[in-house]
Amino acid sequence: MVLAKKYVVVTPFVGEPKKSDFDIVQEHLPALKDGEFLAEAAYLSVDPYQRMKIGNAFPCDMIGGQVARITESKNKDYPAGSWIMGHLGWRTHTIVNPEEDAKRCAQKPFLYRLPDFGDLPVSLGLGVCGRVGNSAYFGFTQICQPKPGETVVVSGAAGAVGSHVGQIAKILGCKVIGFAGTDDKCEWLVKELGFNYAGNYKTVDIAQFLKESAPEGVDCYFDNVGGELSSVVISQMNQYGRIAVCGAISSYNETIAEKRRATMLQPFIVGKQLKIEGFQVNRFAERTQEGVIQNLQWVKEGKLKYKEHIFDGFESAADAFIGLFRGVNTGKTLVKVN
Amino acid sequence: MVLAKKYVVVTPFVGEPKKSDFDIVQEHLPALKDGEFLAEAAYLSVDPYQRMKIGNAFPCDMIGGQVARITESKNKDYPAGSWIMGHLGWRTHTIVNPEEDAKRCAQKPFLYRLPDFGDLPVSLGLGVCGRVGNSAYFGFTQICQPKPGETVVVSGAAGAVGSHVGQIAKILGCKVIGFAGTDDKCEWLVKELGFNYAGNYKTVDIAQFLKESAPEGVDCYFDNVGGELSSVVISQMNQYGRIAVCGAISSYNETIAEKRRATMLQPFIVGKQLKIEGFQVNRFAERTQEGVIQNLQWVKEGKLKYKEHIFDGFESAADAFIGLFRGVNTGKTLVKVN
Repeated sequence: MVLAKKYVVVTPFVGEPKKSDFDIVQEHLPALKDGEFLAEAAYLSVDPYQRMKIGNAFPCDMIGGQVARITESKNKDYPAGSWIMGHLGWRTHTIVNPEEDAKRCAQKPFLYRLPDFGDLPVSLGLGVCGRVGNSAYFGFTQICQPKPGETVVVSGAAGAVGSHVGQIAKILGCKVIGFAGTDDKCEWLVKELGFNYAGNYKTVDIAQFLKESAPEGVDCYFDNVGGELSSVVISQMNQYGRIAVCGAISSYNETIAEKRRATMLQPFIVGKQLKIEGFQVNRFAERTQEGVIQNLQWVKEGKLKYKEHIFDGFESAADAFIGLFRGVNTGKTLVKVN
Repeated sequence: MVLAKKYVVVTPFVGEPKKSDFDIVQEHLPALKDGEFLAEAAYLSVDPYQRMKIGNAFPCDMIGGQVARITESKNKDYPAGSWIMGHLGWRTHTIVNPEEDAKRCAQKPFLYRLPDFGDLPVSLGLGVCGRVGNSAYFGFTQICQPKPGETVVVSGAAGAVGSHVGQIAKILGCKVIGFAGTDDKCEWLVKELGFNYAGNYKTVDIAQFLKESAPEGVDCYFDNVGGELSSVVISQMNQYGRIAVCGAISSYNETIAEKRRATMLQPFIVGKQLKIEGFQVNRFAERTQEGVIQNLQWVKEGKLKYKEHIFDGFESAADAFIGLFRGVNTGKTLVKVN
């Protein structure tokens, strides 16, 4: 009999998530039935969207993707020994019935077998070659519709999605400007990832920084942050500029109404005929493998670099989640279970 | 020799436009050359966009469309006696060389001959069957992509564009909710134009009003106003909602930075995967006649009602313009020249 551990969210998040919002619960798993398999988590995914999608009834199991190895199986499509990405929540061991469980999962695709990562770590299946990578790949290419030679701005540029978007923009022949929250992150973006410019939004005059780094104006903006930073970027966009809104992390923990206000966007939207579109990667679920394979190829070719911020041990997941909103993590945040 | 009068903007608009920003200048027009015609204005168009598009060098001629009759012509495509819509500015008489003058005009189309309006007044060529009508027709159908049965919200709903959009939405089988600035306007929208609901944004709790009038959520929002009203509407939109931004009149005269702030939109944009797009009717210039003819047909069928707020006499144009921003005009604002 297998003893599983799982995270339960015991109270709604108010403002910044706290360790006391979480509890770790143990449960014994029953024997497998036909069609089921047992998955043993290797890495848990820690993402901003979990803050918003947790649901309204508490206590509830923490949601999230994981990369897991199948250790036992009564389902021929998922043999023992194979690796999967699945939205199984933050738990160590899970009995999965793929078809039944998919019906109860809001995230799509619920589950798939990982392609062969070769010498690369399976943790990439949650990051650059997983949901995060697909957010960057589809969100940027499909919503921003970038053209070679255009100028692209990315907010939250040192985050998992932002750093990925900036590199795709370079691969596609664009000029790229990133905003991040520390000088170290900015240096990494320019020196390691090839961003043309990167500004620390906490210390630079954003309008002035953009006027100097992009006097030609901004064509595409990939926004992970929202707030006044975004209003300033959007005020400097060119005619028919395109904005993909992937997240609004500046607002997620903000409970004071006044601090949720920013310079209104409508004058810029109409003045320059801008198009702003929000997206969630679920929308591109049917094209998941296309994105995973493309990103994997770019990684193998050395065109796409990534950083993983790996917290060690199942018990560190709450800290990892809190760090996400404090801006202390760089790259894709993960928890290594063992 | 013809004596023409024209409006000159002598100083940049700061805050609300003032009468003293304008001057009326007289000039003698020369004899016609080959390819030219003389246009005598019947109606001048008074529109919010003029506030934003006036240019940066002062003094300058006031911009704007007019419906005019050709009284003399040396251009066979524009014979004497025919009626035109042209972006000739606020002036009584104009010598026009269609091809040359079009190159200097930012508004498209610069000029066209009016279709036969039958018994209807030619002033419609500036309103419901002109640029304003085409803003409503193309902006709503192309940007909002409404489907029968969907719920549509319109801000600035008693304005020329807003009242037109709401009626198209009804023609297309949508449920329509309008926001306007007086109870009289709201009553007109519901009783005369067939809006399902209309709320006075100055006196109602907008969030509560929408929860009661549209518990099913909002699918399309046609925004003429911007600001906090729009943030509230956008917070109650459904998945994949579409927003057309036609104007942002709440911001045009606002010089205090703090009052240009509103609740940030990004959390709603990403949470519901909304699409927001700004447009100017110029974008649809090549389809101008399609829009004019469709709107004219709806007017003739009695499906499309309109109001004209006609100021009498060339000298009243500055008052007409100021009234536009004070919200005292209902329907399309025009100046009858004679």
